Amino acid sequence: MTGPATPGRRLSLNQWTTKSWSVPQAVDGCLRHGIEAIGLWREEVAAYGLAATAKRVADAGLRVSSLCRGGFLNTSSWLDDNRRAIDEAAELDAACLILVVGGLPGVVPGRALGGGVSRDLAAARRHLAAALEVLVPLAAERGVRLALEPLHPMYCADRAVLSTLKQALDLAAPYPGDRVGVCVDAFHVWWDPEVYAQVARAGAAGRIASFQLCDFLVPLPADVLLGRGMMGDGVIDFPPLYRAVAEAGYAGDIEVEIFNADIWAADPDTVVATMKSRYEAIVARAESRDAAR
Amino acid sequence: MTGPATPGRRLSLNQWTTKSWSVPQAVDGCLRHGIEAIGLWREEVAAYGLAATAKRVADAGLRVSSLCRGGFLNTSSWLDDNRRAIDEAAELDAACLILVVGGLPGVVPGRALGGGVSRDLAAARRHLAAALEVLVPLAAERGVRLALEPLHPMYCADRAVLSTLKQALDLAAPYPGDRVGVCVDAFHVWWDPEVYAQVARAGAAGRIASFQLCDFLVPLPADVLLGRGMMGDGVIDFPPLYRAVAEAGYAGDIEVEIFNADIWAADPDTVVATMKSRYEAIVARAESRDAAR
Repeated sequence: MTGPATPGRRLSLNQWTTKSWSVPQAVDGCLRHGIEAIGLWREEVAAYGLAATAKRVADAGLRVSSLCRGGFLNTSSWLDDNRRAIDEAAELDAACLILVVGGLPGVVPGRALGGGVSRDLAAARRHLAAALEVLVPLAAERGVRLALEPLHPMYCADRAVLSTLKQALDLAAPYPGDRVGVCVDAFHVWWDPEVYAQVARAGAAGRIASFQLCDFLVPLPADVLLGRGMMGDGVIDFPPLYRAVAEAGYAGDIEVEIFNADIWAADPDTVVATMKSRYEAIVARAESRDAAR
Repeated sequence: MTGPATPGRRLSLNQWTTKSWSVPQAVDGCLRHGIEAIGLWREEVAAYGLAATAKRVADAGLRVSSLCRGGFLNTSSWLDDNRRAIDEAAELDAACLILVVGGLPGVVPGRALGGGVSRDLAAARRHLAAALEVLVPLAAERGVRLALEPLHPMYCADRAVLSTLKQALDLAAPYPGDRVGVCVDAFHVWWDPEVYAQVARAGAAGRIASFQLCDFLVPLPADVLLGRGMMGDGVIDFPPLYRAVAEAGYAGDIEVEIFNADIWAADPDTVVATMKSRYEAIVARAESRDAAR
Protein backbone atom coordinates (compact mmCIF):
# COMPACT_ATOMS: atom_id res chain seq x y z
CA MET A 1 0.00 0.00 0.00
CA THR A 2 1.63 3.20 -1.17
CA GLY A 3 0.48 6.63 -0.10
CA PRO A 4 -0.29 9.45 -2.47
CA ALA A 5 2.58 11.47 -3.90
CA THR A 6 1.48 14.75 -2.32
CA PRO A 7 3.71 15.12 0.75
CA GLY A 8 1.00 16.79 2.81
CA ARG A 9 -1.21 13.74 2.38
CA ARG A 10 1.48 11.27 3.44
CA LEU A 11 1.58 12.25 7.10
CA SER A 12 0.56 9.38 9.36
CA LEU A 13 -0.27 9.51 13.06
CA ASN A 14 1.44 6.76 14.93
CA GLN A 15 -1.02 5.98 17.63
CA TRP A 16 1.49 6.17 20.49
CA THR A 17 2.08 9.85 19.77
CA THR A 18 -1.40 10.37 21.21
CA LYS A 19 -1.12 7.59 23.73
CA SER A 20 -4.20 8.53 25.75
CA TRP A 21 -6.41 8.02 22.70
CA SER A 22 -8.08 4.67 22.10
CA VAL A 23 -8.37 3.33 18.56
CA PRO A 24 -11.69 5.07 17.81
CA GLN A 25 -10.45 8.31 19.34
CA ALA A 26 -7.29 8.20 17.24
CA VAL A 27 -9.27 7.42 14.09
CA ASP A 28 -11.62 10.31 14.76
CA GLY A 29 -8.63 12.53 15.53
CA CYS A 30 -7.09 11.70 12.16
CA LEU A 31 -10.35 12.58 10.40
CA ARG A 32 -10.68 15.82 12.36
CA HIS A 33 -7.16 16.91 11.37
CA GLY A 34 -7.25 15.71 7.77
CA ILE A 35 -4.71 12.93 8.34
CA GLU A 36 -5.11 10.00 5.97
CA ALA A 37 -3.01 7.29 7.60
CA ILE A 38 -2.46 5.77 11.00
CA GLY A 39 0.19 3.58 12.62
CA LEU A 40 -1.50 1.16 15.02
CA TRP A 41 -0.20 -0.56 18.14
CA ARG A 42 -1.19 -4.11 18.90
CA GLU A 43 -2.08 -3.44 22.55
CA GLU A 44 -4.58 -0.77 21.53
CA VAL A 45 -5.94 -2.89 18.70
CA ALA A 46 -6.50 -5.74 21.15
CA ALA A 47 -8.22 -3.42 23.61
CA TYR A 48 -10.72 -2.24 20.99
CA GLY A 49 -10.89 -5.56 19.18
CA LEU A 50 -9.14 -6.63 15.99
CA ALA A 51 -12.21 -6.88 13.75
CA ALA A 52 -13.70 -3.71 15.19
CA THR A 53 -10.43 -1.84 14.54
CA ALA A 54 -10.18 -3.11 10.98
CA LYS A 55 -13.76 -2.03 10.30
CA ARG A 56 -13.39 1.36 11.98
CA VAL A 57 -10.20 2.19 10.09
CA ALA A 58 -11.64 0.99 6.77
CA ASP A 59 -14.89 2.88 7.29
CA ALA A 60 -12.89 6.03 7.95
CA GLY A 61 -10.90 5.48 4.76
CA LEU A 62 -7.57 5.58 6.59
CA ARG A 63 -4.47 3.73 5.39
CA VAL A 64 -2.70 1.66 8.06
CA SER A 65 0.90 2.71 7.54
CA SER A 66 2.23 0.13 10.00
CA LEU A 67 1.35 -2.22 12.79
CA CYS A 68 3.64 -1.92 15.80
CA ARG A 69 5.01 -4.38 16.57
CA GLY A 70 6.27 -7.91 16.17
CA GLY A 71 9.74 -9.05 17.08
CA PHE A 72 11.32 -9.72 20.47
CA LEU A 73 12.81 -12.79 18.91
CA ASN A 74 14.90 -13.27 22.07
CA THR A 75 11.94 -14.56 24.07
CA SER A 76 10.71 -18.12 24.34
CA SER A 77 7.29 -17.20 22.96
CA TRP A 78 8.59 -15.38 19.88
CA LEU A 79 7.15 -17.74 17.28
CA ASP A 80 3.59 -17.80 18.58
CA ASP A 81 3.64 -14.12 19.28
CA ASN A 82 4.87 -13.17 15.82
CA ARG A 83 2.46 -15.54 14.15
CA ARG A 84 -0.34 -13.64 15.88
CA ALA A 85 1.18 -10.30 14.91
CA ILE A 86 1.31 -11.38 11.27
CA ASP A 87 -2.34 -12.41 11.38
CA GLU A 88 -3.27 -9.06 12.89
CA ALA A 89 -1.27 -7.11 10.29
CA ALA A 90 -3.05 -9.05 7.53
CA GLU A 91 -6.47 -8.43 9.05
CA LEU A 92 -5.72 -4.70 9.36
CA ASP A 93 -4.27 -4.49 5.83
CA ALA A 94 -1.22 -2.79 7.34
CA ALA A 95 1.48 -1.63 4.91
CA CYS A 96 3.98 -3.46 7.09
CA LEU A 97 4.52 -5.19 10.40
CA ILE A 98 7.31 -3.45 12.29
CA LEU A 99 9.79 -5.85 13.91
CA VAL A 100 11.65 -4.66 16.98
CA VAL A 101 13.88 -7.70 17.18
CA GLY A 102 14.62 -7.77 20.90
CA GLY A 103 17.82 -7.53 22.91
CA LEU A 104 20.02 -10.15 24.53
CA PRO A 105 18.28 -13.33 25.71
CA GLY A 106 17.11 -12.90 29.29
CA VAL A 107 17.23 -9.11 29.29
CA VAL A 108 13.82 -7.59 30.01
CA PRO A 109 13.37 -3.89 29.14
CA GLY A 110 13.15 -1.71 32.23
CA ARG A 111 14.16 -4.46 34.65
CA ALA A 112 17.44 -5.08 36.46
CA LEU A 113 19.65 -7.78 34.95
CA GLY A 114 18.81 -11.21 36.28
CA GLY A 115 20.73 -14.45 36.38
CA GLY A 116 19.63 -15.89 33.06
CA VAL A 117 21.12 -13.23 30.82
CA SER A 118 23.19 -14.20 27.79
CA ARG A 119 25.96 -11.75 26.91
CA ASP A 120 26.67 -13.45 23.59
CA LEU A 121 25.71 -10.61 21.24
CA ALA A 122 27.03 -12.36 18.15
CA ALA A 123 24.83 -15.39 18.85
CA ALA A 124 21.80 -13.16 19.45
CA ARG A 125 22.42 -11.54 16.08
CA ARG A 126 22.85 -14.89 14.33
CA HIS A 127 19.50 -15.98 15.77
CA LEU A 128 17.78 -13.15 13.89
CA ALA A 129 18.61 -14.72 10.54
CA ALA A 130 17.32 -18.10 11.71
CA ALA A 131 14.09 -16.59 13.03
CA LEU A 132 13.49 -14.71 9.78
CA GLU A 133 13.77 -17.97 7.86
CA VAL A 134 10.73 -19.12 9.81
CA LEU A 135 8.78 -15.86 9.81
CA VAL A 136 9.14 -14.73 6.21
CA PRO A 137 7.15 -17.64 4.72
CA LEU A 138 4.44 -17.19 7.36
CA ALA A 139 4.20 -13.48 6.53
CA ALA A 140 4.25 -14.16 2.79
CA GLU A 141 1.31 -16.57 3.14
CA ARG A 142 -0.72 -13.77 4.70
CA GLY A 143 0.56 -11.08 2.30
CA VAL A 144 2.29 -9.20 5.12
CA ARG A 145 5.46 -7.23 4.58
CA LEU A 146 7.92 -7.34 7.47
CA ALA A 147 9.85 -4.18 8.36
CA LEU A 148 13.08 -4.69 10.28
CA GLU A 149 13.66 -1.71 12.53
CA PRO A 150 17.20 -0.96 13.63
CA LEU A 151 17.06 0.72 17.03
CA HIS A 152 19.49 3.23 18.45
CA PRO A 153 22.53 1.42 19.91
CA MET A 154 21.58 2.53 23.42
CA TYR A 155 18.79 -0.09 23.21
CA CYS A 156 21.06 -2.87 21.96
CA ALA A 157 20.95 -4.93 25.13
CA ASP A 158 17.29 -4.62 26.03
CA ARG A 159 15.24 -3.91 22.89
CA ALA A 160 17.06 -4.60 19.65
CA VAL A 161 20.39 -6.18 18.84
CA LEU A 162 19.72 -4.76 15.37
CA SER A 163 21.54 -1.44 15.64
CA THR A 164 22.15 -0.06 12.15
CA LEU A 165 20.43 0.16 8.78
CA LYS A 166 23.37 -1.69 7.25
CA GLN A 167 22.82 -4.60 9.60
CA ALA A 168 19.09 -4.62 8.82
CA LEU A 169 19.70 -4.57 5.08
CA ASP A 170 22.24 -7.38 5.33
CA LEU A 171 19.68 -9.41 7.25
CA ALA A 172 16.95 -8.65 4.71
CA ALA A 173 19.15 -9.37 1.69
CA PRO A 174 18.08 -13.01 1.11
CA TYR A 175 14.43 -11.98 0.65
CA PRO A 176 12.52 -9.87 -1.88
CA GLY A 177 12.08 -6.22 -0.91
CA ASP A 178 8.30 -6.50 -0.87
CA ARG A 179 8.55 -9.29 1.72
CA VAL A 180 11.27 -7.92 4.02
CA GLY A 181 11.85 -4.20 4.21
CA VAL A 182 13.34 -1.86 6.76
CA CYS A 183 11.97 0.91 8.91
CA VAL A 184 13.95 4.16 8.78
CA ASP A 185 13.26 5.90 12.08
CA ALA A 186 15.03 9.25 12.31
CA PHE A 187 15.55 8.94 16.07
CA HIS A 188 17.36 5.63 15.70
CA VAL A 189 19.56 6.37 12.69
CA TRP A 190 20.36 10.09 12.65
CA TRP A 191 23.79 9.65 14.28
CA ASP A 192 24.97 6.92 11.88
CA PRO A 193 27.88 8.02 9.66
CA GLU A 194 26.59 5.54 7.04
CA VAL A 195 22.93 6.56 7.13
CA TYR A 196 22.74 8.29 3.75
CA ALA A 197 24.59 5.51 1.96
CA GLN A 198 22.35 2.91 3.58
CA VAL A 199 19.13 4.80 2.84
CA ALA A 200 20.18 4.90 -0.82
CA ARG A 201 20.97 1.18 -0.68
CA ALA A 202 17.61 0.46 0.93
CA GLY A 203 15.83 2.45 -1.76
CA ALA A 204 17.70 0.75 -4.60
CA ALA A 205 16.62 -2.62 -3.20
CA GLY A 206 13.02 -1.45 -2.75
CA ARG A 207 13.26 -2.05 0.97
CA ILE A 208 12.07 1.16 2.63
CA ALA A 209 8.86 -0.10 4.19
CA SER A 210 8.38 2.64 6.77
CA PHE A 211 9.73 6.10 7.46
CA GLN A 212 9.24 7.47 10.97
CA LEU A 213 9.93 10.92 12.32
CA CYS A 214 10.63 12.08 15.83
CA ASP A 215 13.41 14.13 17.33
CA PHE A 216 16.29 13.09 19.60
CA LEU A 217 16.14 15.04 22.85
CA VAL A 218 19.23 16.39 24.63
CA PRO A 219 19.72 15.81 27.48
CA LEU A 220 17.95 12.46 27.41
CA PRO A 221 15.26 12.01 30.07
CA ALA A 222 15.71 9.58 32.96
CA ASP A 223 13.93 6.85 31.00
CA VAL A 224 15.78 6.87 27.69
CA LEU A 225 12.83 5.18 25.97
CA LEU A 226 11.06 8.52 26.33
CA GLY A 227 13.86 10.54 24.74
CA ARG A 228 11.75 10.95 21.60
CA GLY A 229 10.57 14.50 20.99
CA MET A 230 8.44 16.51 18.61
CA MET A 231 10.36 17.42 15.46
CA GLY A 232 12.22 20.64 16.14
CA ASP A 233 12.61 20.06 19.88
CA GLY A 234 15.80 18.03 19.57
CA VAL A 235 19.00 17.81 17.54
CA ILE A 236 17.99 16.12 14.29
CA ASP A 237 18.21 18.00 10.99
CA PHE A 238 15.21 16.44 9.23
CA PRO A 239 15.18 17.97 5.74
CA PRO A 240 18.33 16.16 4.49
CA LEU A 241 16.99 12.82 5.74
CA TYR A 242 13.55 13.54 4.26
CA ARG A 243 15.18 14.30 0.90
CA ALA A 244 17.40 11.22 1.05
CA VAL A 245 14.42 8.96 1.68
CA ALA A 246 12.46 10.64 -1.13
CA GLU A 247 15.39 10.36 -3.53
CA ALA A 248 15.69 6.70 -2.60
CA GLY A 249 12.22 6.28 -4.11
CA TYR A 250 10.07 5.97 -1.01
CA ALA A 251 6.61 7.45 -1.62
CA GLY A 252 4.71 5.83 1.22
CA ASP A 253 3.31 7.30 4.39
CA ILE A 254 5.49 9.13 6.88
CA GLU A 255 4.69 8.37 10.49
CA VAL A 256 5.30 10.53 13.49
CA GLU A 257 5.95 8.30 16.47
CA ILE A 258 6.78 10.04 19.73
CA PHE A 259 7.25 8.51 23.18
CA ASN A 260 7.43 11.43 25.56
CA ALA A 261 5.90 11.95 28.97
CA ASP A 262 5.14 15.65 28.40
CA ILE A 263 3.54 15.03 25.03
CA TRP A 264 1.50 12.16 26.43
CA ALA A 265 0.25 14.49 29.18
CA ALA A 266 -0.72 17.23 26.72
CA ASP A 267 -4.03 17.64 24.91
CA PRO A 268 -3.90 15.18 21.98
CA ASP A 269 -5.58 17.57 19.54
CA THR A 270 -2.92 20.16 20.27
CA VAL A 271 -0.24 17.51 19.80
CA VAL A 272 -1.65 16.51 16.42
CA ALA A 273 -1.91 20.13 15.28
CA THR A 274 1.71 20.75 16.30
CA MET A 275 2.79 17.54 14.61
CA LYS A 276 1.12 18.65 11.39
CA SER A 277 2.68 22.08 11.34
CA ARG A 278 6.16 20.76 12.22
CA TYR A 279 5.86 18.11 9.52
CA GLU A 280 4.79 20.69 6.95
CA ALA A 281 7.73 22.89 7.89
CA ILE A 282 10.14 19.99 7.30
CA VAL A 283 8.61 19.25 3.91
CA ALA A 284 8.73 22.94 2.94
CA ARG A 285 12.38 23.23 3.96
CA ALA A 286 13.29 20.01 2.18
CA GLU A 287 11.57 21.09 -1.01
CA SER A 288 12.93 24.63 -0.99
CA ARG A 289 16.44 23.26 -0.76
CA ASP A 290 15.59 20.88 -3.60
CA ALA A 291 14.44 23.86 -5.66
CA ALA A 292 17.63 25.75 -4.81
CA ARG A 293 19.89 23.06 -6.18
CA MET B 1 55.31 3.82 26.05
CA THR B 2 54.30 0.18 25.95
CA GLY B 3 53.42 -1.82 29.01
CA PRO B 4 54.90 -5.16 29.91
CA ALA B 5 53.58 -8.25 28.17
CA THR B 6 52.34 -9.89 31.38
CA PRO B 7 48.59 -9.20 31.39
CA GLY B 8 48.42 -8.83 35.14
CA ARG B 9 50.93 -5.99 35.00
CA ARG B 10 49.04 -4.10 32.27
CA LEU B 11 46.09 -3.07 34.41
CA SER B 12 45.82 0.70 34.74
CA LEU B 13 43.66 2.67 37.12
CA ASN B 14 41.88 5.48 35.35
CA GLN B 15 41.71 8.10 38.02
CA TRP B 16 37.98 8.77 37.63
CA THR B 17 37.20 5.22 38.72
CA THR B 18 38.25 6.40 42.18
CA LYS B 19 36.96 9.92 41.74
CA SER B 20 37.24 10.92 45.38
CA TRP B 21 41.01 10.35 45.31
CA SER B 22 43.34 13.23 44.53
CA VAL B 23 46.44 12.60 42.41
CA PRO B 24 48.68 11.61 45.35
CA GLN B 25 45.95 9.41 46.83
CA ALA B 26 45.48 7.65 43.50
CA VAL B 27 49.22 7.18 43.06
CA ASP B 28 49.51 5.72 46.54
CA GLY B 29 46.48 3.53 45.86
CA CYS B 30 48.14 2.12 42.76
CA LEU B 31 51.28 1.32 44.75
CA ARG B 32 49.28 -0.27 47.55
CA HIS B 33 47.45 -2.55 45.09
CA GLY B 34 50.41 -3.36 42.87
CA ILE B 35 49.06 -1.43 39.89
CA GLU B 36 51.77 -0.12 37.59
CA ALA B 37 49.92 2.41 35.45
CA ILE B 38 47.49 5.27 35.88
CA GLY B 39 45.17 7.23 33.57
CA LEU B 40 45.13 10.86 34.68
CA TRP B 41 42.46 13.56 34.33
CA ARG B 42 43.44 17.12 33.60
CA GLU B 43 41.21 18.64 36.28
CA GLU B 44 42.88 16.54 38.98
CA VAL B 45 46.33 17.19 37.57
CA ALA B 46 45.63 20.92 37.65
CA ALA B 47 44.38 20.68 41.22
CA TYR B 48 47.60 19.00 42.41
CA GLY B 49 49.85 20.87 40.00
CA LEU B 50 51.30 19.69 36.70
CA ALA B 51 54.95 19.53 37.74
CA ALA B 52 54.06 18.01 41.11
CA THR B 53 51.97 15.32 39.41
CA ALA B 54 54.71 14.51 36.91
CA LYS B 55 57.22 14.14 39.74
CA ARG B 56 54.91 12.13 41.97
CA VAL B 57 54.03 9.69 39.22
CA ALA B 58 57.65 9.34 38.08
CA ASP B 59 58.90 8.87 41.64
CA ALA B 60 56.33 6.12 42.11
CA GLY B 61 57.51 4.43 38.91
CA LEU B 62 54.02 4.44 37.39
CA ARG B 63 53.37 4.60 33.67
CA VAL B 64 50.81 7.21 32.58
CA SER B 65 48.60 5.19 30.26
CA SER B 66 46.61 8.22 29.12
CA LEU B 67 45.75 11.79 29.86
CA CYS B 68 42.01 12.51 29.75
CA ARG B 69 41.20 14.59 27.89
CA GLY B 70 41.58 16.96 24.98
CA GLY B 71 38.95 17.48 22.32
CA PHE B 72 35.66 19.38 22.43
CA LEU B 73 36.60 20.75 19.05
CA ASN B 74 33.09 22.20 18.76
CA THR B 75 33.87 25.03 21.19
CA SER B 76 35.37 28.42 20.39
CA SER B 77 38.34 27.81 22.70
CA TRP B 78 39.28 24.43 21.25
CA LEU B 79 42.67 25.39 19.88
CA ASP B 80 44.05 27.01 23.02
CA ASP B 81 42.57 24.32 25.19
CA ASN B 82 44.04 21.47 23.17
CA ARG B 83 47.41 23.18 22.94
CA ARG B 84 47.48 23.20 26.73
CA ALA B 85 46.35 19.58 26.89
CA ILE B 86 49.17 18.58 24.54
CA ASP B 87 51.70 20.39 26.70
CA GLU B 88 50.38 18.63 29.78
CA ALA B 89 50.49 15.21 28.12
CA ALA B 90 54.10 15.85 27.13
CA GLU B 91 55.05 16.97 30.62
CA LEU B 92 53.40 13.87 32.12
CA ASP B 93 54.98 11.53 29.54
CA ALA B 94 51.50 10.13 28.90
CA ALA B 95 51.22 7.27 26.41
CA CYS B 96 48.49 9.26 24.67
CA LEU B 97 46.19 12.23 24.96
CA ILE B 98 42.58 11.06 24.69
CA LEU B 99 40.43 13.24 22.44
CA VAL B 100 36.70 13.35 23.12
CA VAL B 101 35.90 15.39 20.05
CA GLY B 102 32.73 17.16 21.22
CA GLY B 103 29.18 17.18 19.96
CA LEU B 104 27.25 19.61 17.78
CA PRO B 105 28.31 23.27 17.98
CA GLY B 106 26.36 25.03 20.71
CA VAL B 107 25.33 21.87 22.55
CA VAL B 108 26.62 21.83 26.14
CA PRO B 109 26.61 18.46 27.94
CA GLY B 110 23.96 18.28 30.64
CA ARG B 111 22.25 21.54 29.64
CA ALA B 112 19.00 22.14 27.79
CA LEU B 113 19.35 23.04 24.13
CA GLY B 114 19.77 26.76 23.61
CA GLY B 115 19.29 29.01 20.62
CA GLY B 116 22.77 28.78 19.12
CA VAL B 117 22.75 25.06 18.35
CA SER B 118 23.86 23.81 14.95
CA ARG B 119 22.12 20.65 13.77
CA ASP B 120 24.49 20.17 10.86
CA LEU B 121 26.10 16.90 11.90
CA ALA B 122 27.91 16.43 8.60
CA ALA B 123 29.59 19.83 8.99
CA ALA B 124 30.54 19.06 12.59
CA ARG B 125 32.17 15.86 11.40
CA ARG B 126 34.01 17.63 8.58
CA HIS B 127 35.39 20.08 11.12
CA LEU B 128 37.14 17.22 12.93
CA ALA B 129 39.42 16.62 9.97
CA ALA B 130 40.26 20.32 9.73
CA ALA B 131 41.00 20.56 13.46
CA LEU B 132 43.27 17.51 13.33
CA GLU B 133 45.31 19.14 10.58
CA VAL B 134 46.13 21.85 13.10
CA LEU B 135 46.57 19.66 16.17
CA VAL B 136 48.64 16.80 14.81
CA PRO B 137 51.74 18.93 14.07
CA LEU B 138 51.46 20.58 17.50
CA ALA B 139 51.29 17.18 19.17
CA ALA B 140 54.13 15.83 17.05
CA GLU B 141 56.38 18.71 18.12
CA ARG B 142 55.85 17.69 21.73
CA GLY B 143 56.08 13.95 21.05
CA VAL B 144 52.46 13.40 22.07
CA ARG B 145 50.31 10.71 20.51
CA LEU B 146 46.67 11.66 20.04
CA ALA B 147 43.98 9.02 20.65
CA LEU B 148 40.64 9.61 18.94
CA GLU B 149 37.91 8.16 21.09
CA PRO B 150 34.64 7.21 19.42
CA LEU B 151 31.85 7.59 21.95
CA HIS B 152 28.62 5.62 22.13
CA PRO B 153 26.08 7.11 19.68
CA MET B 154 23.86 8.21 22.57
CA TYR B 155 26.45 10.94 23.17
CA CYS B 156 26.61 12.03 19.52
CA ALA B 157 24.90 15.38 20.04
CA ASP B 158 26.52 16.50 23.28
CA ARG B 159 29.91 14.84 23.66
CA ALA B 160 31.29 13.29 20.48
CA VAL B 161 30.14 13.35 16.88
CA LEU B 162 32.71 10.59 16.48
CA SER B 163 30.52 7.52 16.98
CA THR B 164 32.31 4.47 15.60
CA LEU B 165 35.79 3.01 15.39
CA LYS B 166 35.49 3.01 11.61
CA GLN B 167 34.86 6.74 11.62
CA ALA B 168 37.84 7.30 13.96
CA LEU B 169 40.13 5.19 11.79
CA ASP B 170 39.03 7.00 8.63
CA LEU B 171 39.80 10.29 10.36
CA ALA B 172 43.19 9.06 11.55
CA ALA B 173 44.15 7.57 8.18
CA PRO B 174 46.17 10.54 6.83
CA TYR B 175 48.58 10.37 9.78
CA PRO B 176 51.12 7.83 11.06
CA GLY B 177 49.78 5.43 13.68
CA ASP B 178 52.24 6.62 16.29
CA ARG B 179 50.92 10.18 15.91
CA VAL B 180 47.16 9.53 15.71
CA GLY B 181 45.73 6.42 17.27
CA VAL B 182 42.31 5.42 18.56
CA CYS B 183 40.95 4.58 21.96
CA VAL B 184 38.96 1.34 22.12
CA ASP B 185 36.57 1.76 25.04
CA ALA B 186 34.41 -1.33 25.56
CA PHE B 187 31.44 0.71 26.79
CA HIS B 188 31.38 2.79 23.63
CA VAL B 189 31.97 0.11 21.00
CA TRP B 190 30.54 -3.19 22.28
CA TRP B 191 27.27 -2.86 20.32
CA ASP B 192 28.93 -2.12 16.98
CA PRO B 193 28.40 -4.89 14.39
CA GLU B 194 31.76 -3.86 12.85
CA VAL B 195 33.78 -3.74 16.06
CA TYR B 196 35.91 -6.83 15.50
CA ALA B 197 36.72 -5.90 11.90
CA GLN B 198 37.64 -2.38 12.97
CA VAL B 199 39.77 -3.52 15.93
CA ALA B 200 41.72 -5.71 13.50
CA ARG B 201 42.05 -2.79 11.10
CA ALA B 202 43.22 -0.53 13.94
CA GLY B 203 45.81 -3.09 14.97
CA ALA B 204 47.09 -3.59 11.43
CA ALA B 205 47.63 0.16 11.15
CA GLY B 206 49.32 0.33 14.57
CA ARG B 207 46.62 2.65 15.84
CA ILE B 208 45.39 1.16 19.08
CA ALA B 209 46.61 3.80 21.50
CA SER B 210 44.37 2.97 24.43
CA PHE B 211 42.13 0.13 25.55
CA GLN B 212 39.58 0.91 28.24
CA LEU B 213 37.27 -1.41 30.12
CA CYS B 214 33.99 -0.76 31.83
CA ASP B 215 30.60 -2.37 31.56
CA PHE B 216 27.37 -1.09 29.99
CA LEU B 217 24.64 -1.01 32.62
CA VAL B 218 21.02 -2.00 31.89
CA PRO B 219 18.77 -0.20 32.57
CA LEU B 220 20.81 2.96 32.12
CA PRO B 221 20.72 5.36 35.09
CA ALA B 222 18.95 8.73 34.86
CA ASP B 223 22.19 10.43 33.85
CA VAL B 224 23.41 8.26 30.98
CA LEU B 225 26.97 9.50 31.45
CA LEU B 226 27.01 7.40 34.61
CA GLY B 227 25.86 4.21 32.87
CA ARG B 228 29.38 2.81 33.12
CA GLY B 229 29.68 -0.12 35.50
CA MET B 230 32.27 -2.45 36.97
CA MET B 231 33.09 -5.27 34.57
CA GLY B 232 30.60 -8.06 35.17
CA ASP B 233 27.79 -5.78 36.34
CA GLY B 234 26.45 -5.06 32.84
CA VAL B 235 25.94 -6.72 29.47
CA ILE B 236 29.36 -6.73 27.83
CA ASP B 237 31.13 -9.99 27.10
CA PHE B 238 34.73 -8.86 27.66
CA PRO B 239 36.91 -11.89 26.83
CA PRO B 240 36.23 -11.81 23.05
CA LEU B 241 37.03 -8.09 22.89
CA TYR B 242 40.12 -8.58 25.06
CA ARG B 243 41.31 -11.32 22.70
CA ALA B 244 40.56 -9.27 19.59
CA VAL B 245 42.58 -6.34 20.91
CA ALA B 246 45.45 -8.66 21.87
CA GLU B 247 45.38 -10.38 18.48
CA ALA B 248 45.45 -6.97 16.85
CA GLY B 249 48.85 -6.53 18.45
CA TYR B 250 48.09 -4.17 21.30
CA ALA B 251 50.38 -4.82 24.25
CA GLY B 252 49.93 -1.55 26.14
CA ASP B 253 48.18 -0.81 29.37
CA ILE B 254 44.52 -1.60 29.89
CA GLU B 255 42.61 1.07 31.76
CA VAL B 256 39.51 0.66 33.82
CA GLU B 257 37.48 3.87 33.59
CA ILE B 258 34.16 3.87 35.40
CA PHE B 259 31.74 6.77 35.89
CA ASN B 260 29.17 5.53 38.36
CA ALA B 261 27.55 7.22 41.32
CA ASP B 262 27.51 4.07 43.48
CA ILE B 263 31.15 3.27 42.75
CA TRP B 264 32.17 6.86 43.44
CA ALA B 265 30.39 6.65 46.79
CA ALA B 266 32.11 3.37 47.74
CA ASP B 267 35.44 2.95 49.51
CA PRO B 268 38.11 3.47 46.80
CA ASP B 269 40.34 0.66 48.10
CA THR B 270 37.45 -1.76 47.83
CA VAL B 271 36.74 -0.50 44.32
CA VAL B 272 40.34 -1.03 43.26
CA ALA B 273 40.42 -4.53 44.76
CA THR B 274 37.20 -5.42 42.93
CA MET B 275 38.53 -3.91 39.71
CA LYS B 276 41.66 -6.04 39.99
CA SER B 277 39.83 -9.29 40.57
CA ARG B 278 37.29 -8.63 37.81
CA TYR B 279 40.11 -7.74 35.41
CA GLU B 280 42.01 -10.89 36.30
CA ALA B 281 38.88 -12.98 35.72
CA ILE B 282 38.49 -11.51 32.24
CA VAL B 283 42.12 -12.23 31.39
CA ALA B 284 41.83 -15.78 32.73
CA ARG B 285 38.67 -16.44 30.72
CA ALA B 286 40.18 -14.92 27.58
CA GLU B 287 43.33 -16.98 27.91
CA SER B 288 41.56 -20.25 28.73
CA ARG B 289 39.50 -19.86 25.58
CA ASP B 290 42.70 -19.14 23.69
CA ALA B 291 44.18 -22.34 25.05
CA ALA B 292 41.06 -24.27 24.08
CA ARG B 293 41.31 -23.32 20.44
